[in-house]
Amino acid sequence: MPNNQRRQFLQISGIAALAGCSPQGTTTEEEKLPSALGKPIRAYGERSPFETVKRAVPDLKRPQIGSTRTPLTETEGIITPSSLHFERHHAGVPELDPAKHTLLLHGLVDRPLVFTLADLKRLPSASHIYFVECAGNSGGEWKAPGGPNAAASFGLASCSEWTGVPLRILLAEAGLKREGKWLVAEGADVCKMSRSLPIEKALDDCLVAYAQNGEAIRPEQGYPLRLVVPGYEGNVNVKWLRQIKIVDQPNQTKDETSKYTDLLADGTSRQFTFLMDAKSVITYPSGGQKLSGPGFQEVRGLAWSGRGAIDRVDISTDGGKTWEKAALQEPRLPKAFTRFRFPWNWDGKETELVARAVDSSGYMQPTREELTAARGMNSAYHYNGVKVWKIGADGSVKNG
Amino acid sequence: MPNNQRRQFLQISGIAALAGCSPQGTTTEEEKLPSALGKPIRAYGERSPFETVKRAVPDLKRPQIGSTRTPLTETEGIITPSSLHFERHHAGVPELDPAKHTLLLHGLVDRPLVFTLADLKRLPSASHIYFVECAGNSGGEWKAPGGPNAAASFGLASCSEWTGVPLRILLAEAGLKREGKWLVAEGADVCKMSRSLPIEKALDDCLVAYAQNGEAIRPEQGYPLRLVVPGYEGNVNVKWLRQIKIVDQPNQTKDETSKYTDLLADGTSRQFTFLMDAKSVITYPSGGQKLSGPGFQEVRGLAWSGRGAIDRVDISTDGGKTWEKAALQEPRLPKAFTRFRFPWNWDGKETELVARAVDSSGYMQPTREELTAARGMNSAYHYNGVKVWKIGADGSVKNG
Repeated sequence: MPNNQRRQFLQISGIAALAGCSPQGTTTEEEKLPSALGKPIRAYGERSPFETVKRAVPDLKRPQIGSTRTPLTETEGIITPSSLHFERHHAGVPELDPAKHTLLLHGLVDRPLVFTLADLKRLPSASHIYFVECAGNSGGEWKAPGGPNAAASFGLASCSEWTGVPLRILLAEAGLKREGKWLVAEGADVCKMSRSLPIEKALDDCLVAYAQNGEAIRPEQGYPLRLVVPGYEGNVNVKWLRQIKIVDQPNQTKDETSKYTDLLADGTSRQFTFLMDAKSVITYPSGGQKLSGPGFQEVRGLAWSGRGAIDRVDISTDGGKTWEKAALQEPRLPKAFTRFRFPWNWDGKETELVARAVDSSGYMQPTREELTAARGMNSAYHYNGVKVWKIGADGSVKNG
Repeated sequence: MPNNQRRQFLQISGIAALAGCSPQGTTTEEEKLPSALGKPIRAYGERSPFETVKRAVPDLKRPQIGSTRTPLTETEGIITPSSLHFERHHAGVPELDPAKHTLLLHGLVDRPLVFTLADLKRLPSASHIYFVECAGNSGGEWKAPGGPNAAASFGLASCSEWTGVPLRILLAEAGLKREGKWLVAEGADVCKMSRSLPIEKALDDCLVAYAQNGEAIRPEQGYPLRLVVPGYEGNVNVKWLRQIKIVDQPNQTKDETSKYTDLLADGTSRQFTFLMDAKSVITYPSGGQKLSGPGFQEVRGLAWSGRGAIDRVDISTDGGKTWEKAALQEPRLPKAFTRFRFPWNWDGKETELVARAVDSSGYMQPTREELTAARGMNSAYHYNGVKVWKIGADGSVKNG
């Protein structure tokens, strides 16, 4: 790299002033090099004992009926570590023996079928990186100012590489009848969590998944089988999947009538809001963090859309007055997290940081005002307004 | 899906004859549904106690000086679970405190620098899915018939999403001198594993990585810092990275003179074979597995190339006489695993299964004969000949 280019880069990024990069010829005093052989090889790796990043475990009377959130400010890239994937369950995590677990496919089909895990693993398979987001993610944002940090407000969303059998293959195998217009998927948890889905989605891109990030699905995410419904609200991605029944209309299960329905401003409600609209969150700098001082900051975050890929993320460092494009990390995959980054030289003054996502359908993430004008303030679900982080002159970051 | 299309699919794939998909109206007798609340939420997930997939741990006198292999026949998709990423170390896994660990960048630079982890995490970052493959992977294949199964012969290769600082940014920060043509990267293990690399690669796509699959790099893969050198032999992806020294020529370290050099047929040797050439392995059906009977089989495997993306994988089910294209799972990323799949109706007769990869540079994976004609039989490194699996009439799969 010629010297003039290098200088230009430093000028642009402003990292020349980065603290801590002190010119020294030797390693620092603190660093003690090992003086003996390290730890031996092992069959199944674990993280370093120095690592303590975790999901937040709320204090619940019944810890089987609740959720934990992905610590979005402490994860990198687009793959959420399976150990940190958010969890939400209505009756705890059942411990299922994969040798005994089966999937029943019945209802309006020519030939009802029961599949063992071994059967499913022999069928044609597919692998895709998809986000899963709970419909209730960011629910606290309807009533401003919402959660104190990115994990609290956005952590019911995670992204994994899922592998399984395309559901359309199972339907072809069973022989879908012409009258079959919906399906009801049911889990093997004790509450038999179940949801209705239109058959078009089943014939499109649903997966009966048995693997997550290369290995068996984790218990909290549905071991040994999960229905993965790309881009749709998390709840319909039925975990511990034990049966799919083909029906002619929605089943109006308890889980789709008592919950996951949007109450609108006029008192009517909107049922079956399956699609998760485009959304973004700045994870650095974000609520609860503190900037050490003026100068270079890499603004980082995640964006995703149930409608397709993320085409653009705009960043404003002046509370929405002006916008610039963030760099989007490739690959930008449909219905998956996209990591964005934006170089920012903070001048040390109070300001507001905002991101907004635009997806491949042309949809732009709305402001809070636009969203509440359309949908009112009565819903607990499907909030996707842009998030504002207030930067204080002391470097503190708070809800805007 | 109209009925005629469905029937056609079944005819093509032959899965109608799949055993185990018995028409039944109820679930099988074995399946007992839970009758009580399941397990509670938890801060850091673990896999199901029913899951026992692991890396093979060989019986070694000094288990700090050896390797474990990714169980490639039991992983799915392209992301290798970090817990199952292959490991290779020459002096065990050092336990490093990230708060004390530093990276020294010195030698032929204007301004030697010491970076803490916190410094590095504030700099511009990038995330990429890359494979890492040990130069010795498939070394046993030079002397046919090689390992008994896919993991034994190919399991010193894994694929992760790595996040870190592009090395060119650190070099710009330090001010690379014109005479700096190589670098020497050194690890913090007690043997100070170190390797030389040309500066062009450092200025291209090397990462000083601190994260793997979304969280901190695992101890066996270099916690807290690893030099990721995309597409180059695993050994130069220096783990537990503690210093990078800019020099004017290769340092001829013990690790690049006593090892990782290819001895050719005429007695001369080829040093610095950095690039890992295109390679593929069929993981199902593969050595040690058994087909349950004639009919539909999904042939599955992985392909990768240090030169770029995988453009094509050809499959032969008749020992190389005829070839057909496998389906390649998107995204096909440069210097990353690509998952391939091929539908096969096995007629129950003895045959040979072969895969060969073609990468985006046009390079085609050679046959064993082509490879040994060019390179002789003296090397233990950089074997990438096509692998033949023999299918017996009894469904057994063995080395070809």
